[in-house]
Amino acid sequence: MNSKLQSRVEKVGDAVAAGNLTQLEFLALNSSLNLADGHARQELTAGQAKIIARLPDLWAEAQERTVHEIEREAQESYFHLLGQHSYPGGDGRVLSCYSSSVAMEIYARALATTTDAVALVHPTFDNIPDILTGVGLRLVPLEEDVLHGGDLPVGLLQSVGAVFVTTPNNPTGRVLSEEGLRGLAAQCAEHGVVLTLDTSFRGFDTDAHYDHYAVLEESGCRWVVIEDTGKLWPTLELKVGWLVRSANVGLPIAKVYSDILLGVSPLVLAMVRELAEDAADAGLADLHDYIAENRALLRTELAGLPDIRFVDEDTRVSVERVHVGDRYAADVWARMCEHSVYVLPCQKFHWARPAEGDRLLRIALSRSPAAIAAAARVLRSVLLDT
Amino acid sequence: MNSKLQSRVEKVGDAVAAGNLTQLEFLALNSSLNLADGHARQELTAGQAKIIARLPDLWAEAQERTVHEIEREAQESYFHLLGQHSYPGGDGRVLSCYSSSVAMEIYARALATTTDAVALVHPTFDNIPDILTGVGLRLVPLEEDVLHGGDLPVGLLQSVGAVFVTTPNNPTGRVLSEEGLRGLAAQCAEHGVVLTLDTSFRGFDTDAHYDHYAVLEESGCRWVVIEDTGKLWPTLELKVGWLVRSANVGLPIAKVYSDILLGVSPLVLAMVRELAEDAADAGLADLHDYIAENRALLRTELAGLPDIRFVDEDTRVSVERVHVGDRYAADVWARMCEHSVYVLPCQKFHWARPAEGDRLLRIALSRSPAAIAAAARVLRSVLLDT
Repeated sequence: MNSKLQSRVEKVGDAVAAGNLTQLEFLALNSSLNLADGHARQELTAGQAKIIARLPDLWAEAQERTVHEIEREAQESYFHLLGQHSYPGGDGRVLSCYSSSVAMEIYARALATTTDAVALVHPTFDNIPDILTGVGLRLVPLEEDVLHGGDLPVGLLQSVGAVFVTTPNNPTGRVLSEEGLRGLAAQCAEHGVVLTLDTSFRGFDTDAHYDHYAVLEESGCRWVVIEDTGKLWPTLELKVGWLVRSANVGLPIAKVYSDILLGVSPLVLAMVRELAEDAADAGLADLHDYIAENRALLRTELAGLPDIRFVDEDTRVSVERVHVGDRYAADVWARMCEHSVYVLPCQKFHWARPAEGDRLLRIALSRSPAAIAAAARVLRSVLLDT
Repeated sequence: MNSKLQSRVEKVGDAVAAGNLTQLEFLALNSSLNLADGHARQELTAGQAKIIARLPDLWAEAQERTVHEIEREAQESYFHLLGQHSYPGGDGRVLSCYSSSVAMEIYARALATTTDAVALVHPTFDNIPDILTGVGLRLVPLEEDVLHGGDLPVGLLQSVGAVFVTTPNNPTGRVLSEEGLRGLAAQCAEHGVVLTLDTSFRGFDTDAHYDHYAVLEESGCRWVVIEDTGKLWPTLELKVGWLVRSANVGLPIAKVYSDILLGVSPLVLAMVRELAEDAADAGLADLHDYIAENRALLRTELAGLPDIRFVDEDTRVSVERVHVGDRYAADVWARMCEHSVYVLPCQKFHWARPAEGDRLLRIALSRSPAAIAAAARVLRSVLLDT
């Protein structure tokens, strides 16, 4: 390893200890073998490429029509694509944000005006706990097994102002079932707790395509949902995070929103509308096949290593966790960096107890098969040598 | 006035009392005579239209090259265009954000970890005080006349952790001179206060094109600057807010940044690079002429109304304030809404003493001359009748 790379990996080592997952993803941004972040970086399909070729036409459309019309169409196409037929678009309860993280920041700031504690699913992507604690909220871990195991403990619900669930979860891929959501919403209604869902990875798993908004509205609970167009399509970080809320949420979400933005680009909204229509017309099924094939490819390339396990057997989201046996994932990851292949060690996902992620790597699958195969081969050789 | 419009104007009246300027701007978004927000909504010039026609090519470029390269080029083109030759791009102290407001939110969150009070220029656009107070900071008004009158009172500097100045200011257009900045930076250095500049309207006024970064770096003070590409070009809300900081700032800005985003779109960065190059090649001078002509048009259309004054005689920014004599600006504004013409009443800019804005309207000039003329004629008739 040359000294520049050595210095970089050392810096990276410091980041693993002190920083967050996004900082690790940032290191990978300019690498050709970046399998770190969960953003979509595969090639455009033929259908998507046609839409991108028409960007100047979409620009002209966005100049001529009102933002309101294009926004309504984009919402309709996107929410219906994913089975969310009861979303409350008609009465202005869907706010368009630059990204799901901006939506989360707005929500967190609004939430912090009325409570000081949130129950948050554990593990999950670390910018969620970091944003929530960054605005002064205290976190109570909600273990995945508890979340999916039936009623939440009453004591937990009494100790917090909100319950925050990522579904499908990142990185585990676990999906809150319709029955599970109904029970959780009933409990939140009973205890006056704001039920919050981050559904950024919803697009990848049809188990998450039941109509969440129907369940939420029927429950009468106070709720917030954050949707994200940014994980599905390789749109060079052009995306929309939708911040959706119940009529009774009782939080100054619209006010904080207006502190941060007037609205998102109608060009991006028009592009999202077109991509959602393309996805409805077979593109989404093709994407599901694509991710499944990349997952199979990764598993095949690593087959026969006796102490390596794929811990999320049935997951369909666009990331895959690999258990690296007795090795430390941070060591494996540092060795991969030497080969300029970037993935994520999982400690930071386990925001309450990082050691639970010590033996796990997360590998992004929204990449070309060639990138998956090349990275898998490097990983295999590193695993054989660590 | 029909009942739907009546209801809308009443809602708007409530918003004036309870809401913020962005909420008023939002009401105007879908109107053909929206002269409310300060975003650029004029037509593309021929040079800009050529760039937009090439968006698919820029997309291809952004797919092939690294984000880092395109980001560096965009920064170089933009900062040099506006005379900011000493910006610290080389050592990673320029963070690209979705917008200047997102940059401000990130800065505010980082600042609030080390201080609880900020001196803020008065008046200024109200999302600045709202974001700062939203993260828990207490504000101390810094009157424009005090700011431009020489040394700040030592007591003021001792009572705050940061001084926040919008220059050119929105809505007044007043620019902090090089000498003024040098003195202020020296005072901030002496008192360990973070000097913060929001230069979002910098592009419109060559008086703000001296090299601020040279002055700031030379002073040794802790500083933060927020730049904004979003006011200059009619890019359908596609923009970059740059969050720039001194090496000694001592705030967790990079960490909070990484909680909110991994980076902005390389397509937007490539577009900003191209627009900045077009602007350097005569486009910026043309824009200055365009704004000056729109200002002259507005003033001409309102000429001869004896009690009407343009209070910012020498301003060059893309908004104009009109003093409406003994009338209440909110009344004039409500009457204009009846004609579907949207401007801004100015109370909320005067965040510490709203009554100081009671007689002032702000009118956006980054619009087509036809829109300016049509709105001015409505305003004239309303003024004659109020």
